[in-house]
Amino acid sequence: MFNIAVAQSGGPTAAINASLTGVFSGAELCPDIDEIYGAENGIEGILNDRLLNLRNILMDEHDKELLMKTPSTILGSCRFKLKDFEQDEESYLKILDTFNKHNIKAFFYIGGNDSMDTVMKLDRYFTAQGIDIKVIGVPKTIDNDVTETDHTPGFGSAAKYVATSLQEIIRDCRVYSIPSVTIVEIMGRDAGWLAASSCVLRANGEPAPHMIYLPENDFSPEKFLEDVKQAQLRYKAVIVAVSEGVKCDFATDDDAAVDAFGHVMLGGIGKKLEKFVAANIGCKVRSIELNVMQRCSSHIASLTDITEAERIGREAVAAAIERGESGVMMSFKRISNNPYRCEIVTADISKIANQEKKFPKEWINPEGNNVTIDALNYFLPLIQGEPVIEYRNGIPVHFRLNQ
Amino acid sequence: MFNIAVAQSGGPTAAINASLTGVFSGAELCPDIDEIYGAENGIEGILNDRLLNLRNILMDEHDKELLMKTPSTILGSCRFKLKDFEQDEESYLKILDTFNKHNIKAFFYIGGNDSMDTVMKLDRYFTAQGIDIKVIGVPKTIDNDVTETDHTPGFGSAAKYVATSLQEIIRDCRVYSIPSVTIVEIMGRDAGWLAASSCVLRANGEPAPHMIYLPENDFSPEKFLEDVKQAQLRYKAVIVAVSEGVKCDFATDDDAAVDAFGHVMLGGIGKKLEKFVAANIGCKVRSIELNVMQRCSSHIASLTDITEAERIGREAVAAAIERGESGVMMSFKRISNNPYRCEIVTADISKIANQEKKFPKEWINPEGNNVTIDALNYFLPLIQGEPVIEYRNGIPVHFRLNQ
Repeated sequence: MFNIAVAQSGGPTAAINASLTGVFSGAELCPDIDEIYGAENGIEGILNDRLLNLRNILMDEHDKELLMKTPSTILGSCRFKLKDFEQDEESYLKILDTFNKHNIKAFFYIGGNDSMDTVMKLDRYFTAQGIDIKVIGVPKTIDNDVTETDHTPGFGSAAKYVATSLQEIIRDCRVYSIPSVTIVEIMGRDAGWLAASSCVLRANGEPAPHMIYLPENDFSPEKFLEDVKQAQLRYKAVIVAVSEGVKCDFATDDDAAVDAFGHVMLGGIGKKLEKFVAANIGCKVRSIELNVMQRCSSHIASLTDITEAERIGREAVAAAIERGESGVMMSFKRISNNPYRCEIVTADISKIANQEKKFPKEWINPEGNNVTIDALNYFLPLIQGEPVIEYRNGIPVHFRLNQ
Repeated sequence: MFNIAVAQSGGPTAAINASLTGVFSGAELCPDIDEIYGAENGIEGILNDRLLNLRNILMDEHDKELLMKTPSTILGSCRFKLKDFEQDEESYLKILDTFNKHNIKAFFYIGGNDSMDTVMKLDRYFTAQGIDIKVIGVPKTIDNDVTETDHTPGFGSAAKYVATSLQEIIRDCRVYSIPSVTIVEIMGRDAGWLAASSCVLRANGEPAPHMIYLPENDFSPEKFLEDVKQAQLRYKAVIVAVSEGVKCDFATDDDAAVDAFGHVMLGGIGKKLEKFVAANIGCKVRSIELNVMQRCSSHIASLTDITEAERIGREAVAAAIERGESGVMMSFKRISNNPYRCEIVTADISKIANQEKKFPKEWINPEGNNVTIDALNYFLPLIQGEPVIEYRNGIPVHFRLNQ
């Protein structure tokens, strides 16, 4: 008998708790696994021996059902970056201490690109030291920018929220008789996947958003202005989707800060384009930031996403315990679009850590202001289905660890 | 046989199309009513004879079902303010022309305080001229600031969206181990009803938002800072709900504009408080504007709200046609909270037009930073129930008049 540990890292999503539930359920099925520990605040909880016994927290199927539909990370998150063990072995020794103290033989880390760096470094260290502790990465990010997987859990729900909200914003924009331009800023630091996914409205015959701008393409303010003017010839209310990562002269914010991984924390391209349109066209113009609601709106999650997120968590346990894998990330391999089928496989962590999967250039239209039908076909399966949400007093019920 | 007309005005809500559906369905039941016209862009559509024959648009029960769950105003809206007829009879004559040309004997205007001014003026004019055209107001506004009614259609859905999103934001804020302050700016120009409604989360044991600030109370930046510091002693992630109409030194925006009714168009108090906290406390701080999603998020509408909005539209037709009323607004009279019961009555339009119903001072706590249990009991029934949403390709289906 041995124990396992699981932790969550990086920015929240609507599906990250579903993957935690999956790891828990997968571990429950393993007769050799005794305790299932959840580390608080990602790897920080391992470093500081802050572990919760999940068997005492997830008491029944209803708890698991609720947790799957609760946004963000129930265990908390972190932005901690491990140094290479050759430079700083102390952190590794602390981690090893915690694992040894609690007889932990497998560690599952749910996170994005940065978290996969932690998975890679831990696995390398244990391998170098001849220590038999399996380390497995479970992907998550609304950015969908993790390599070696068709897509990431969390992305489908974010895309469904963006499409649903954008469609409502479109209705809202159309009410007045005067011409208007509405700019919706969508998350995506360096990759435009989420902004691009707003094209799904086309599947229902909705022509908006009329333009979609992504960070994968050079952005020309002059071309943007020309695009808006052209769209105004056809549409009274022009709707623009813009990825927060779009780089242009207006995107150099004075307030720009840098996070723990050295990423510039962006934001504000929507507001800048709003001012640019107001100054150069002079019509009614509004910018809307969908903000953190994009990553935490569980009430409009994609059932496909939540189901897959749980499944990939279960499979991670099977990979580590049944097949003895380590230093891998669980990954989706798309078999077909219609009917949609995905297999779960494992991928070499060294091809993933610190990499970024950009939105394909060949899925951007020649004009550079929208995406192609291939993109639409890729996105559509990921937003299908709606989880049954439990309401109490008219409000969705969340699983809560403590008050 | 005669015809009737209906129009929508003011800012969009998730329930204004339900009231339109109600007027249509009510009129369908009247054997004396031939055509049911919808005027485009509110009273402007009457002024300019832009009428749509709704019998050719709402073809079956499914169309009506979809329209009820489609946000914003299918007929378009306006912000047109009628002058008194003694000063400018021309507009009245144009309106009368349209009514006479199409044999319209009753006009239903769905809108807020400003639209009720139009109802009042039209009724006074027709009465003064001895013209038998009934004019009835049907309330709507997410602001809930219409007098002589317990609440307004559209408010319950907005409140349900705010509570649902706020709860998700709360989950999102709690993930990191460092202290943080999150300020959520909620719509409400002069009345704090919608911001106050965020207290409903308490019904499910959620202590956040920890503070709620309303425009009905004087706002002191120093007291606010003290409140935040006190809350930080108890909560790692402090959540503040603030009404956009809260007035303080920081709220005097250089960009402040004035709309057609002379209302100052606000916005930005959240961002200003964010900078204030950053400067004076220095912890991680974020402000979030829920923006227009508050007024158009049909996918998370309140079933109580949508049902009542439809019912009040039907009743408007009964009031005008069966009982011969005019110069009134349809109104909700609450009979009891538990079980929740509301009657629909009519109210004298002169007591409503250009008035504003503020959030009651006695429902604000002595500290001035939250609301009382009476407020909670008032709000809770209004957010109950979830309409069944039809999805196509993973996206809610909206009723669309044209592309």
